[in-house]
Amino acid sequence: MEPKLTALCLVCTLKPSPAESSADLLGGQLLQALAAEGVAGDTVRVVDHDVKPGVEADMGDGDEWPAIRQKVLAADILVIATPTWMGHMTSVAQRVLERLDAELSELDEAGRPSMFDKVAVAAIVGNEDGAHQITAELFQALNDVGFSVPTQGVTYWNGEAMGSVDYKDLPETPEKVATTTKSVARFAAHLAGLLKATPYPAPAA
Amino acid sequence: MEPKLTALCLVCTLKPSPAESSADLLGGQLLQALAAEGVAGDTVRVVDHDVKPGVEADMGDGDEWPAIRQKVLAADILVIATPTWMGHMTSVAQRVLERLDAELSELDEAGRPSMFDKVAVAAIVGNEDGAHQITAELFQALNDVGFSVPTQGVTYWNGEAMGSVDYKDLPETPEKVATTTKSVARFAAHLAGLLKATPYPAPAA
Amino acid sequence: MEPKLTALCLVCTLKPSPAESSADLLGGQLLQALAAEGVAGDTVRVVDHDVKPGVEADMGDGDEWPAIRQKVLAADILVIATPTWMGHMTSVAQRVLERLDAELSELDEAGRPSMFDKVAVAAIVGNEDGAHQITAELFQALNDVGFSVPTQGVTYWNGEAMGSVDYKDLPETPEKVATTTKSVARFAAHLAGLLKATPYPAPAA
Amino acid sequence: MEPKLTALCLVCTLKPSPAESSADLLGGQLLQALAAEGVAGDTVRVVDHDVKPGVEADMGDGDEWPAIRQKVLAADILVIATPTWMGHMTSVAQRVLERLDAELSELDEAGRPSMFDKVAVAAIVGNEDGAHQITAELFQALNDVGFSVPTQGVTYWNGEAMGSVDYKDLPETPEKVATTTKSVARFAAHLAGLLKATPYPAPAA
Repeated sequence: MEPKLTALCLVCTLKPSPAESSADLLGGQLLQALAAEGVAGDTVRVVDHDVKPGVEADMGDGDEWPAIRQKVLAADILVIATPTWMGHMTSVAQRVLERLDAELSELDEAGRPSMFDKVAVAAIVGNEDGAHQITAELFQALNDVGFSVPTQGVTYWNGEAMGSVDYKDLPETPEKVATTTKSVARFAAHLAGLLKATPYPAPAA
Repeated sequence: MEPKLTALCLVCTLKPSPAESSADLLGGQLLQALAAEGVAGDTVRVVDHDVKPGVEADMGDGDEWPAIRQKVLAADILVIATPTWMGHMTSVAQRVLERLDAELSELDEAGRPSMFDKVAVAAIVGNEDGAHQITAELFQALNDVGFSVPTQGVTYWNGEAMGSVDYKDLPETPEKVATTTKSVARFAAHLAGLLKATPYPAPAA
Repeated sequence: MEPKLTALCLVCTLKPSPAESSADLLGGQLLQALAAEGVAGDTVRVVDHDVKPGVEADMGDGDEWPAIRQKVLAADILVIATPTWMGHMTSVAQRVLERLDAELSELDEAGRPSMFDKVAVAAIVGNEDGAHQITAELFQALNDVGFSVPTQGVTYWNGEAMGSVDYKDLPETPEKVATTTKSVARFAAHLAGLLKATPYPAPAA
Repeated sequence: MEPKLTALCLVCTLKPSPAESSADLLGGQLLQALAAEGVAGDTVRVVDHDVKPGVEADMGDGDEWPAIRQKVLAADILVIATPTWMGHMTSVAQRVLERLDAELSELDEAGRPSMFDKVAVAAIVGNEDGAHQITAELFQALNDVGFSVPTQGVTYWNGEAMGSVDYKDLPETPEKVATTTKSVARFAAHLAGLLKATPYPAPAA
């Protein structure tokens, strides 16, 4: 029997719980779509935790990243869900990337960084513009620390230029977004299954 | 009497004339707004000309950049109007930036590159997403060769995520876009006037 | 007599004081160069302060941004000094941008946002790569809220690809960097002087 | 017996053959590393061909993209090798992305775009800075049309900030670059093999 896959969604909104969050909504929809693919999911709203600035796996002194990090290590699929501010991913999302930088030095016995064989996908929301750029920077950074990116690995929504409507306030989920979300889940599960069954070889020495 | 200011709009659509172009439309609206500020405008649709690949001011052999370059040199304000493809500025817009790279070596007697005291602004259109990233890359590259960027120096339009409506097919120009276009013209003319009257000092030696 | 100009450097290192910081070093060198142009400077290491996540001018509840914001409002020139992590500006720098987003709603009697007539420049350091992209995103976001960018408005240093030497550990400041830093100061002071004497008109209504 | 894998390297230098090209050199080294993994390679220097502007699979009228496109369709692994100009990928590389945009509409019987199950990696060279940003934009755009990105899927070299040495003029290939190139080949071959054996399911309808 195939091993069950798991996914972790790091919601990178600037708003602490219980405030409503569009990123939380789209991230949650992606987790639901992953569940339909047989992937068990979990969510962390990062801003609810005291994730210290720095690039070590544990910055000490009340740092709450190590507990989140354990969840990342346990997951096969990482979902980064982020809103768009100033056309960029949030400071919370960038903080997550900075903390993941430490994983490059966390090697298994074969010399493979700790994020190898994991798959990363993204869920991006915004009033009006920025999803492609955030996708670009997320994929580059997550790939750099070891994540693989499945075909068409992002779902997103942003409104018309200079608009101000939020995803969470739409009367219903646009059909194209809903379909894309399902596809992303399908592709992520496919790739994660392949890599779990047949891990990457070690890097060249 | 204050010297009259001039603007050049380089339209970076992938479509040769006489095809309709959203970038040409928005760029033209910005030139109209500049005219209302007393700035005389001219337009070049770059793809109609054989601009050779390379990073010299003249690549020889039928290269049509040198004639465009003379227009850039004569203008106080450069408008880059570009559509969005794959979330990026077009290959035509990037070609323009590559050719402008040569200007870093074109110094006046005081050691100032040829683009000093000129102002750059942008007009960006797209189906759905990408304006902030294109703005970022345009401002960085144009600033690198010497252009100054006035406050809020971009007008843009893109539709809702995963959409396919073009700016040129909108029933009318959205009011926020029209107002932004006017503001960009106003700010560009203001800054170009200041820099024309009081040029930058030479770089440090 | 011309009014004296002032500059504020927001150092966006991830390391709290008193740790040595390359961004602090290069930012400080830029402030020195600005002093040589007659510009009075001040520095804030942002990570030493509890800047809350959010996009309001004051997030309440112990938020230390409002005090920093007062310094931004008082300055004619804003310097963002940031290291490079994962090829990006730091989460601390992005946090600053998020907080500046609120300034778009802070209008004077003429309807001009609070950052109009201010000049922004950047100082970027990194082990190996990323300065152009960070420049792009800083200029786009700072311009969006109202800052103008003077010709060639960035000084930076990064080492050879895949390297690990920090700017602060170089035996001496590379001459090209030192010269660029002086030029950036000169250009920023020039533009800030012009805009202080002749402010932008109000945006179109 | 496992099916043999193939790779195509699109060299996106601005310099027509037979000029020496750093991008061609690093791209060739990556093809050699792929050969050591059992992957047969082919190279096209794109600027030697008349690739028309546009976003269709065939722009007609002397367009030489269709022949290159056939090679892309036949390959399991696509390598984009590009120099850095103005901190960006070249206009030639962006032209390639624009032409690949058409593949989103080229569906097989199952509704899967033509680039599904293919793997993309990058080889980036530059005097001094830009590799991370180019990586980001390449991965985002190539993923958008269907390519998957293997763990740590980029090899690159750029020199110290404000430098001017080219990769092709280095006395020898830096060891870290050589090792990274080998690793990228290994990871690309691994992922391409998995996806060839077990293709992605169709997107959600």
